[in-house]
Amino acid sequence: MEPNSVGIVTTQYFVFAESPHELALECGDTLGPVTLAYETYGRLDSAKANAILLFHALSGDAHAAGYHSLEEHRPGWWDIMIGPGKAFDTEKYFIICANCLGGCRGSTGPSSVNPKTGKPYALDFPIITIADMVKAQRALIDHLGIEKLLAVAGGSMGGMQVLEWATQYPESVRSAIPIATTSHLSAQGIAFNEVGRQAIMSDPDWNHGNYYGGTPPNKGLALARMIGHITYLSDEAMHRKFGRKLQNRKELSYDFLTDFQVESYLHYQGDLFTQRFDANSYLYITKAIDYFDLAEKGNGSLVDACAPARAAFLIIAFSSDWLYPPYQNKELADALRVNNVEVSFCVLDSHYGHDAFLLEAEHQTRLIAHFLKHIYEEHVRGGTHEP
Amino acid sequence: MEPNSVGIVTTQYFVFAESPHELALECGDTLGPVTLAYETYGRLDSAKANAILLFHALSGDAHAAGYHSLEEHRPGWWDIMIGPGKAFDTEKYFIICANCLGGCRGSTGPSSVNPKTGKPYALDFPIITIADMVKAQRALIDHLGIEKLLAVAGGSMGGMQVLEWATQYPESVRSAIPIATTSHLSAQGIAFNEVGRQAIMSDPDWNHGNYYGGTPPNKGLALARMIGHITYLSDEAMHRKFGRKLQNRKELSYDFLTDFQVESYLHYQGDLFTQRFDANSYLYITKAIDYFDLAEKGNGSLVDACAPARAAFLIIAFSSDWLYPPYQNKELADALRVNNVEVSFCVLDSHYGHDAFLLEAEHQTRLIAHFLKHIYEEHVRGGTHEP
Repeated sequence: MEPNSVGIVTTQYFVFAESPHELALECGDTLGPVTLAYETYGRLDSAKANAILLFHALSGDAHAAGYHSLEEHRPGWWDIMIGPGKAFDTEKYFIICANCLGGCRGSTGPSSVNPKTGKPYALDFPIITIADMVKAQRALIDHLGIEKLLAVAGGSMGGMQVLEWATQYPESVRSAIPIATTSHLSAQGIAFNEVGRQAIMSDPDWNHGNYYGGTPPNKGLALARMIGHITYLSDEAMHRKFGRKLQNRKELSYDFLTDFQVESYLHYQGDLFTQRFDANSYLYITKAIDYFDLAEKGNGSLVDACAPARAAFLIIAFSSDWLYPPYQNKELADALRVNNVEVSFCVLDSHYGHDAFLLEAEHQTRLIAHFLKHIYEEHVRGGTHEP
Repeated sequence: MEPNSVGIVTTQYFVFAESPHELALECGDTLGPVTLAYETYGRLDSAKANAILLFHALSGDAHAAGYHSLEEHRPGWWDIMIGPGKAFDTEKYFIICANCLGGCRGSTGPSSVNPKTGKPYALDFPIITIADMVKAQRALIDHLGIEKLLAVAGGSMGGMQVLEWATQYPESVRSAIPIATTSHLSAQGIAFNEVGRQAIMSDPDWNHGNYYGGTPPNKGLALARMIGHITYLSDEAMHRKFGRKLQNRKELSYDFLTDFQVESYLHYQGDLFTQRFDANSYLYITKAIDYFDLAEKGNGSLVDACAPARAAFLIIAFSSDWLYPPYQNKELADALRVNNVEVSFCVLDSHYGHDAFLLEAEHQTRLIAHFLKHIYEEHVRGGTHEP
C-alpha cells in the first residue's frame, strides 16, 4: 500500500426518512426509509469546520479512496486525489463521500427492497433528480452534526450536485469545486444517455425492470457502458491509446471477431461494468442527469439561478472534454460572476477527454490544494472556529 | 417536381462475375454472380469522356437523384447536388451511382440468395472491403464502355472509394473528389461502429444472421442507427435543432418515456432505418469501413500509398465534422501534395457535422462545379476527344 493512502476503510450506512418522515421527492412522490452508504477519510475537527463532501459521477460509489481490504486490487475511484498530502488532504480535512440516491452500491435504489412489497422496487422506484440526491446527502451531513461544509466537490454528475448544493443550501457551504460539469446536459449528451437506456430496455432480460433473482440485462448494460466509455474519452486519447492496433493478431480476421484493440477494450469495460452495476440504477441515474437544468430554478435564467450562491467557486474544465465541454463550464463561471460570486475558472490542457477529472492528478491537485488552503485559512483557522 | 430535377429515373441492374469468372475478393474468397444496382443521370457523350462515378455512404444506395415515381415523396440522397445546373450538372455530365457490394438496395449482399444453397447468404457472405466494392464498380464502368472517368466523387465511405479508385486505377480517372472522408477511420470511429454491430448482434432476433423470412433484429438495427446519427451531427447542430426542448409535453414526464425532442428524433430515425436497411448489410459495410486503411498499400506510409495517384484532387472537409475530422482530410491532402499531385483542399465552415456533405449544397456546388468545369475544359473539350 502506498504511503500516502488513506489505508483500509469501511463503508458506513446511514438510515433515515423512516415513516412518517419519508423523503419528499421532486417528482411528488415520497421515499422511505432511505439508506445512504458513505465513507469518511481523515478526522473531523472539534469545531466540525474541516468537512468536505465529495459527489461521485454516474458509475461511482461511496468508495472514493483507500482499500476495503488488503486483498482489494484497486483503491477507491478518486484515490489519486484523496489522502495524506493529496489534493483533498486527509491530514487537514475530513472527507465524506456517499453513494447517490438511486445507486446500487449500498444506497437505496431500484434494486433495494421495497418495504411495502418485500421485493426489489424495480420500476416502482420513483424517478429521482439531482436535487433529490443532494437532499438525501443533506440529511447525512445533518446527521454528522456538520453545520457548514468547508467544500463540496465533484466531477461530471458530481459537479451537478455541487451546483445544486451551492444554490440550494448556500448557507451550508464555504466553497464549491464543480469539475468537468455543466448547468445542463447538451442535446448530444441526452442523446447518448437515451441510446444507453434503449440498449438496456431492448434487452429481453430487462423484462420491464423485473430481473432481480433472474438473469440481469447484461448485454444491454454492457452496450450502454461501451457507448458511455467512448464519450468519456477523446478522439486523441483513443488514438494515442489504441490507434488502429490489432488485438492479439497480426492480420485482419475477415470475420466479425474482434480485430482492433479498441474493440477489445470496450468489450472488456462493458463486461466488467455488468459485474458491479445495476441496469435499473443506470436508467434512473442517467435520467437524473438528463433532467438537471440549473437555469430552470431561475425561470430559464442561469444568472438568476446562480443568485443564491454564496460559496467561493473553483471551476475546472478539461480542454478535450466534449461531453461536458469547457464552453459549458465557462457559461457557469460567467453566470456566477454576474452575481459577484468569487470564481476561479481553469481549463486544464489534457487529451484524456471527460475522464481527465479521474486521471489528471497533478494539475488538479495544485489548483484544489491551493484553493482549499486559502478557504480553510481565511474562514476557519483565521476565523472564529479555531482562533 | 422541381425544374432542376433529373425527373423520373429507373434503377438498372448489371450482372457479372458468373462462374467461372467469380470476383476475387481481398479476403481470399470469391463471389459470383454479382449484381450491381445502378442509376445514371444525364447523357454519355459520344467520346464517353463526360462520365462521373459517384459513391454513396454507409446507408446510401444507387438512387442518388430524381424520383422513382410521381408518388415518391423524397428524391435521391444527393438530389441537391445532381441535376441540370447543379454541381454534378446533368446537362454536361453523365452521372453514375451504384449500390455498393454488400448492400441491400439491389446489389449483391448478405440478404441476396446464395446460388449454392438457394437461401440468403446471411453470414456465409464473405467479408468485403472498400477495395472489393471498387473492383465491382470497375466492372460496371468497363461494361458501360467507359475507359476514363472524368471524375470519381463521394462523401464519407464514398470518399474512401474515391481514394481507392484514384490509387488503384489511376489511369482510369481524371479527377477525384473525396468529401468528408479519411484515409483510415480513427479508433473512435471504429469504436462507434463496433457498438452498433454489437447492438445488432445482441438482439436475439438477429439469430447469428439467420433472420430472413422471420423477424429481423429491428431493435438492434435501430439502436445502431441512433448511435450513428449522433455521430453524423455536431453538438452545435443538435443544440440548434433540439436544445433541451420537450417533445409534445410541457413538463418532464418523471417516467422513462420520451421527454426530449432529441430522443424522439433518434427513435424516429432508428425506426425509419429498419424499414429500408438490412442488419447484416450494416455489419458488413461498417466492417469494410473499419478495415479501410490507405496507408497499408504503402507499407504504412500514406505518402507512398498516394504515389500512384494521377488525378487532380478536390478534397472537401467540414469544420464541425468530428467523425471524419478536417485534420484527417488535411493529412490526405499533404500526402498527395508530397507526390506532386494537383490538390485543392477546402474546409467548409458548417455546423451540420459529418452530415454537412448531404446538406450544404451551396458551398459544395460552387467548389465542385468550378473544379469539374476546369477538368472538363482542360482534358476533354480542349483535349483530344472533342477537338
